[in-house]
Amino acid sequence: MVAGGVGASALPAQTDPLTSWNEGAAKKAIVDFVNATTTQGSATYVAPEERIATFDQDGTLWVEQPMYTQVIYCLDRVPAVVRARPELADVEPFKTVLSGKRDAIAKLTMSDLEKILMATLTGMSVEQFRADAKRWIDTATDGRWKKRYVDLAYAPMLELLTYLRANGFKTYIVTGGGQDFVRVYAREVYGIPPEQVVGTAAGIKYGYDAAGKPVLTKEPKLFLNDDKAGKPEGIHLMIGRRPNAAFGNSDGDRQMLEYTTAVSGARLAMLVLHDDAQREYAYGPANGLPATKVGTFTQALYDEAMKKGWVVVSMKSDWNRIFAGGEVAKKQK
Amino acid sequence: MVAGGVGASALPAQTDPLTSWNEGAAKKAIVDFVNATTTQGSATYVAPEERIATFDQDGTLWVEQPMYTQVIYCLDRVPAVVRARPELADVEPFKTVLSGKRDAIAKLTMSDLEKILMATLTGMSVEQFRADAKRWIDTATDGRWKKRYVDLAYAPMLELLTYLRANGFKTYIVTGGGQDFVRVYAREVYGIPPEQVVGTAAGIKYGYDAAGKPVLTKEPKLFLNDDKAGKPEGIHLMIGRRPNAAFGNSDGDRQMLEYTTAVSGARLAMLVLHDDAQREYAYGPANGLPATKVGTFTQALYDEAMKKGWVVVSMKSDWNRIFAGGEVAKKQK
Repeated sequence: MVAGGVGASALPAQTDPLTSWNEGAAKKAIVDFVNATTTQGSATYVAPEERIATFDQDGTLWVEQPMYTQVIYCLDRVPAVVRARPELADVEPFKTVLSGKRDAIAKLTMSDLEKILMATLTGMSVEQFRADAKRWIDTATDGRWKKRYVDLAYAPMLELLTYLRANGFKTYIVTGGGQDFVRVYAREVYGIPPEQVVGTAAGIKYGYDAAGKPVLTKEPKLFLNDDKAGKPEGIHLMIGRRPNAAFGNSDGDRQMLEYTTAVSGARLAMLVLHDDAQREYAYGPANGLPATKVGTFTQALYDEAMKKGWVVVSMKSDWNRIFAGGEVAKKQK
Repeated sequence: MVAGGVGASALPAQTDPLTSWNEGAAKKAIVDFVNATTTQGSATYVAPEERIATFDQDGTLWVEQPMYTQVIYCLDRVPAVVRARPELADVEPFKTVLSGKRDAIAKLTMSDLEKILMATLTGMSVEQFRADAKRWIDTATDGRWKKRYVDLAYAPMLELLTYLRANGFKTYIVTGGGQDFVRVYAREVYGIPPEQVVGTAAGIKYGYDAAGKPVLTKEPKLFLNDDKAGKPEGIHLMIGRRPNAAFGNSDGDRQMLEYTTAVSGARLAMLVLHDDAQREYAYGPANGLPATKVGTFTQALYDEAMKKGWVVVSMKSDWNRIFAGGEVAKKQK
């Protein structure tokens, strides 16, 4: 199935690299794309150093319902922030978060959440942030699955990352989530090093501590908003060229997929449709699925995908297995 | 000389990878650093996936006198910009540039140059910019050396890039120059792919052309100022971790070297001192060399280097050869 690519010889021909994918149009599109771009002499051949694949994270590589993992981290951090800044205890939305009342917390507006994100993700050195986020992600567990968040990565997508890398593709995460947050575990979970994580970023300020030692501090201002149009913009900033393949699951990924497929040659654009309430979640509102605020996949995006030949992956019928449950992708240098 | 590193086996033990470097403290510091970080079992061993080296470009990897190559490109582009926007013909500083009077052009202020950079480096799609810059860099030649700018890369530094990569280091350019400009030739000249060029960047805006095709446009606003404190800030944004080694030649590199060496372990910080007026240029004003506006290396920086054990490379005595003259570093994937 794999022909001519860098590292292809490492894959025994009889081993299916995508065992969690059912046979069907989605799996075939992936294998066809890899063959088209790695077969020497093919008109759609891509030189190994030009092979780039970009992946959204939340809802594409791991679970994003009922709320983005990073937002849960931020809510969990509120007590520590209030201990350091007691004046926030009586100020909304911090007061509501401290109350622990789940109904009230669930009703927080986007503006409330932004205040919480700014207060919990900035103001510290990059090392302090990394250490705190690492401590949390190593142990925090999801309420429904009773598993660590890092164990809720999708097995079929980890296989896809490994398969593309075995065929010479450099794999990137391009996420609306926090770049520094995702970097904390991206290598462990996805085999992706920090420099291949493109995400929303706060401003970073260089300065010196009391002992004169250099410190990089996360500033309470948005520097890069890596969502929607910000995704191709962030890709240009951090990768400097157009991906050959892009993977997403929501309207936040539309522009990235448009940009990826706007030129000729073999291009692969895929959207994961969450249509499996039993094994994971079902939401859209595309295809009559329930509407959601987290990871919205509109009918307009679905229609654009059909029109442009983007592949919509049905979690229910294309994947025979959902969670990796601790298995991880092979590391990429 | 090379022990235990990734790819070390590719270097025959009897071949000196740094032939353009004279035997001395600078060459020894490089080899000692590589041995310290790549010898398994050593207390200062660094895992291959953590090996990062960052290089300033202008004055560190290639010639920056009498003026940064990118500024010459911008001056050369002024006639084309004025053809497209004729109203600029009678406006300063464009009028002076169009006059062709070298003395007057040499007297342009930094504020004048910024206007010229903004007008010539922005307003077009990223593809248009790349094509135009490529056309120029492929043929433009330096006035003193009568060679293409890309042939004025320093042979000892290309050897150093190759040597570090052969020992598992990922090499980055971290430049105050334009990220998109340097990306045009970084692979060809330095073997460094676009995503490993961190530089000053204009804002990028995603939109659609008249036919509805996605376009990324370079906007006339500064997004990332990758000089001085902006260098460690840019490194965090684009690489996400502290380098093990950093190379520069001017006060613009001070913070990058401070940040690189602010933690324990084997760290290498080097500054190229231009003290060879005959084979290249001599400027400082460190060490009593003539002062310059381009690539200023102050006495304060020199003193900080001495105090902190950073290595100052004397171009005159440490390098037995200056220009690569068309030889290029081995490509890094």
